Amino acid sequence: MTLTGKLLIGRHAVAGTGAPVYAINPATDQPLQPGYPGGNREHVAQACALAWNAFDAYRETTPAARAAFLQAIAEEIEALGDTLIDRAVAETGLPRARMLGERGRTCQQLRTFARVVLAGEWLDARIDPALPQRQPLPRADLRQRHIALGPVAVFGASNFPLAFSVAGGDTASALAAGCPVVVKAHGAHPGTSELVGQAVARAVQRCQLPEGVFSLLYGSGREVGIALVSDPRIKAVGFTGSRSGGLALCAAAQARPEPIPVYAEMSSINPVLLFPAALQARGEALAQAFVGSLTQGAGQFCTNPGLVIGQRGAALERFATAAVAALTDAPAQTMLTPGICQAYQQGVAALASHPLAHTLGQGLSATGPNQGQAQLFIADASDFLAAPALQAEVFGAASLIVQCDDDQQVRQVLEHLEGQLTATLHLDDADLPQARALLPVLERKAGRLLVNGWPTGVEVCDAMVHGGPFPATSDARGTSVGTAAILRFLRPVCYQDFPDSLLPVALGAANDLQLRRLVDGQREA
Amino acid sequence: MTLTGKLLIGRHAVAGTGAPVYAINPATDQPLQPGYPGGNREHVAQACALAWNAFDAYRETTPAARAAFLQAIAEEIEALGDTLIDRAVAETGLPRARMLGERGRTCQQLRTFARVVLAGEWLDARIDPALPQRQPLPRADLRQRHIALGPVAVFGASNFPLAFSVAGGDTASALAAGCPVVVKAHGAHPGTSELVGQAVARAVQRCQLPEGVFSLLYGSGREVGIALVSDPRIKAVGFTGSRSGGLALCAAAQARPEPIPVYAEMSSINPVLLFPAALQARGEALAQAFVGSLTQGAGQFCTNPGLVIGQRGAALERFATAAVAALTDAPAQTMLTPGICQAYQQGVAALASHPLAHTLGQGLSATGPNQGQAQLFIADASDFLAAPALQAEVFGAASLIVQCDDDQQVRQVLEHLEGQLTATLHLDDADLPQARALLPVLERKAGRLLVNGWPTGVEVCDAMVHGGPFPATSDARGTSVGTAAILRFLRPVCYQDFPDSLLPVALGAANDLQLRRLVDGQREA
Repeated sequence: MTLTGKLLIGRHAVAGTGAPVYAINPATDQPLQPGYPGGNREHVAQACALAWNAFDAYRETTPAARAAFLQAIAEEIEALGDTLIDRAVAETGLPRARMLGERGRTCQQLRTFARVVLAGEWLDARIDPALPQRQPLPRADLRQRHIALGPVAVFGASNFPLAFSVAGGDTASALAAGCPVVVKAHGAHPGTSELVGQAVARAVQRCQLPEGVFSLLYGSGREVGIALVSDPRIKAVGFTGSRSGGLALCAAAQARPEPIPVYAEMSSINPVLLFPAALQARGEALAQAFVGSLTQGAGQFCTNPGLVIGQRGAALERFATAAVAALTDAPAQTMLTPGICQAYQQGVAALASHPLAHTLGQGLSATGPNQGQAQLFIADASDFLAAPALQAEVFGAASLIVQCDDDQQVRQVLEHLEGQLTATLHLDDADLPQARALLPVLERKAGRLLVNGWPTGVEVCDAMVHGGPFPATSDARGTSVGTAAILRFLRPVCYQDFPDSLLPVALGAANDLQLRRLVDGQREA
Repeated sequence: MTLTGKLLIGRHAVAGTGAPVYAINPATDQPLQPGYPGGNREHVAQACALAWNAFDAYRETTPAARAAFLQAIAEEIEALGDTLIDRAVAETGLPRARMLGERGRTCQQLRTFARVVLAGEWLDARIDPALPQRQPLPRADLRQRHIALGPVAVFGASNFPLAFSVAGGDTASALAAGCPVVVKAHGAHPGTSELVGQAVARAVQRCQLPEGVFSLLYGSGREVGIALVSDPRIKAVGFTGSRSGGLALCAAAQARPEPIPVYAEMSSINPVLLFPAALQARGEALAQAFVGSLTQGAGQFCTNPGLVIGQRGAALERFATAAVAALTDAPAQTMLTPGICQAYQQGVAALASHPLAHTLGQGLSATGPNQGQAQLFIADASDFLAAPALQAEVFGAASLIVQCDDDQQVRQVLEHLEGQLTATLHLDDADLPQARALLPVLERKAGRLLVNGWPTGVEVCDAMVHGGPFPATSDARGTSVGTAAILRFLRPVCYQDFPDSLLPVALGAANDLQLRRLVDGQREA
């Protein structure tokens, strides 16, 4: 469990050749040892070659073997103990309790995918038996299952150093699908990444899998990342991060001789609608809870509530006043990196100086390096509709209240929004007709709709959707959190008139995996 | 049932403004009345606006209502009777029996999707009930279903004037998913397109659906098509056609401010592997059947066997000799359009003059306009590996035999192939070990694998995959034939803590649709 500063290419720790990247402890602004010299194109090619060589064997491991591997990764991460937690806290400035919770979530996520792999619904096994007597033409025996797409490039996210990084949701779902993974570590937490990478590599070895099932690369700038996405042996990409970063990967993936899918989770301001009766009945309580959600984790969540929509009037004013009051006591919080803190300050400054937005209130000033001060702005709906810049995501604890004249303008504001990860409705019974009328708009705009809750907090379960229309993600057909994430890394293959001995086990006559297959249009019991 | 030469924009027949396009009867080279003046950007915008306006209502029609609509389309197509068949034969040069069969397939396809809509598995309903007592944090009530992506642009295919055109597989699956459809008719069969378009429009009216659920546009060149794919209200594209055409649509879809998925089925040469024991035992019979598959429908199938791979030797020579003999008697056949016939002749000429390919045999010469003469070529595997041009698709009854030195070279040839719709294995029991060893390569290369059959003939059923890695399609994650085609036009939405009265019916407590939902990780009985 010693940090080496080296890339993990299969089972080998390899020294990078680029300028070393040091993690910065954002709470102290001090660099952390060791340095992580970046990889080069040759390292990318080596990792991809190993992944490619591992692919055919790994994708045909039994569900039991693959589930055991996912569980072994969880165990190896847990075995890192405080070493991992200490390093993650130092690299991110996030509180220890958060890191403990995130480790639990990460390991639970891996174990959940182990359950999913064993259940086997991801195989989507379908059988249409031969109909040799059918007129005018007989029907062949046709069987379909899903297979893995191929090696997947995963880009670690800055804001979930465990749950959406080296062994996070993208990696877990790709491995569950049968895809080898090459991770490009996020430069903000290279030590955390190396520790988790070592844990995964140990699990690969323990489970006697081909070494190429997992590699971990470092590199500043976009050279390594673009080379990785451009490698012909990579067949899909998972990414959580900025809109510009995600779009660069999408462009690289489309420019390949063989374009590949990119699942980039990019940008969302997560509108919160305050309906009149709810606002009237409990505006102050809503304001308190809103500020809690806004400032949680220094606002560094993809699902942070960056936009509040309500109808102009005394109730909305009470909400705003209460929010400002709650915000006033909110301490500035250490952000993940100096770069993220600077980007936050620029985003806030742009809103503060925007002629159509007004500063309503703010939290306590910074008392240490890289701290973000929470900010609340307000704008009229007509101005919001006129100024697209007002719906740019400001990553951090900043939000904008948009005050509308009437129902019609609320609808206009919603229709004007870009695609979102979430949309939240605060409503009482009297608001139901109005909410029902807006539901079609919200369904078109977001991947997850919430009633009387807050969008921060994303459950890892079967029904979760952490996705949504562009630019929330580059591909609204998937989710990056929850068990349906496995479906992103699969494609169907049909087997026609195969002798039983040549069929994959999922489609064989014996049904050894005990799947509920779709046989001649009927679901097996 | 009179042909008007007009666009169908919702319920209105609208005269185009471009130069009229006339169908050509390829058997006589004579133009057919009426002319079809192409639409302009304004017509595209009108059709998309209607589709957009229809979307929210149409996507929430009940499964019963949507199934009734699909069935009504089938009935209206059948009610066209001989008018449709006569026109389709005149426009395509395809035999009457083929058109009758294709009409049956088209209507069966629509009725199959009606069954799929009613069964409801496409909704992928998932429920994770609230766990208010869970520690350290309670779980919210989370429910997921699939909703339609939005209006879909469908491009009719030249080679299936009914089954993959105006009311073909893409349209049927998009409508089944809840997506309004705007069809760009193929210029080769505008009259057939209009007749079927009128049938769909009548079904829209009969079922009292919003008129924008269906529109039909004409236009030569790419202006109308690119405008359609670029319209912000279009959210996905279905296409079957050439590689250049498909790639142009993909580029337009990616260049939008909001990129959208394109399901383009483009290019495949459908390798056929002749394993040694099978070749030895029944080379002559295989050759006969091969020529039958090659020349069926003038070779104008996406799954036409354009490549035969075998090991050099006496058995392969017997196969080749028998194939040449069978081919010698094969009449030249009328191709779909003068342009397709010219492209075929150019492709054949390129192979005939290629220094690394040799002409092995050919069918009878043309006796009328626009007839394609079947062609068989041969090349050594080492030359095939050196000349990428030898694996370019020649759309029509042309095929290339590649002779390999050994197992290893067969593998090399397969690894060298681009993505394919199909790969076929002809084998006997003694060939099973060799076939098993190659299976992983074939699974990576193709969407459908066949044993001892021929790839032409694509069953519409649950287990079919008509898809495959690039450039067979632009998106290997889907199929354009079979019931899984509906999944291409859906995206998941999650509802968190929704009151029952606000939930979509698929997720409500009463389970009125009687779905087998995934509840707390368990599939309902």
